[in-house]
Amino acid sequence: MDLTLRVIGHVRSPLASRADAPRQGDEGAPAADLELVDEVAPALNGITVGDELLVLTWLHEGDRSTLTTRPRNDPDRPETGVFATRSPDRPNPIGLHRVTVLAVDGNRLHVARLEAIDGTPVVDLKPVLGAVDER
Amino acid sequence: MDLTLRVIGHVRSPLASRADAPRQGDEGAPAADLELVDEVAPALNGITVGDELLVLTWLHEGDRSTLTTRPRNDPDRPETGVFATRSPDRPNPIGLHRVTVLAVDGNRLHVARLEAIDGTPVVDLKPVLGAVDER
Repeated sequence: MDLTLRVIGHVRSPLASRADAPRQGDEGAPAADLELVDEVAPALNGITVGDELLVLTWLHEGDRSTLTTRPRNDPDRPETGVFATRSPDRPNPIGLHRVTVLAVDGNRLHVARLEAIDGTPVVDLKPVLGAVDER
Repeated sequence: MDLTLRVIGHVRSPLASRADAPRQGDEGAPAADLELVDEVAPALNGITVGDELLVLTWLHEGDRSTLTTRPRNDPDRPETGVFATRSPDRPNPIGLHRVTVLAVDGNRLHVARLEAIDGTPVVDLKPVLGAVDER
């Protein structure tokens, strides 16, 4: 089975490094652009300003050999499995980011509050689903 | 850059085919097991009964060439880009499922309401994050 991800675009952000980035988008992350590749442009049809999207990224600086971590590097906390955390260091370093669309310009989405660093590959976009009775 | 996902486990479910599966977990999906591979067992440390998790899967029956779709096969609806839908047919067929942990037995998590079919590869687990002031 082929489990190779295709890069569908990249994050363009003022965040240059992991040291600059907040842990989550709602912890002070800046607006950023998602620059999609031409080949997937039709897949953006129907996305409009104000939409809430889940952006899936490939956290290319993540350490894929890490299985446990010490939350917030606090020596008083026990080692925790990475599946119980949002650490980018994990076997498959897929990032999951909830954003609001601020503008759509061709293949480029301008979004609010994204904590991924500049150059991060984008691998999928999905709508946020409301409650079952609102679909 | 290597964007190849590692299979960290598989879904064990009474759902045998896409035709049996509801579109989302909260639309009548059954309980299922997540059987993780031995190599990643330490990454489960800290996951306990009652936890809300996001399960990322590889929807291996998804059609990766699909860029637009007609929602619910309704000819009266316009073609929509797959990034504006939760269709499993998309360039990178990553499934995103919110579940509650019902039991933990070694490398096996028993979870409520999972719409992925039997044999679906699992690629990541993440905790659901609460509001920023509750972390």
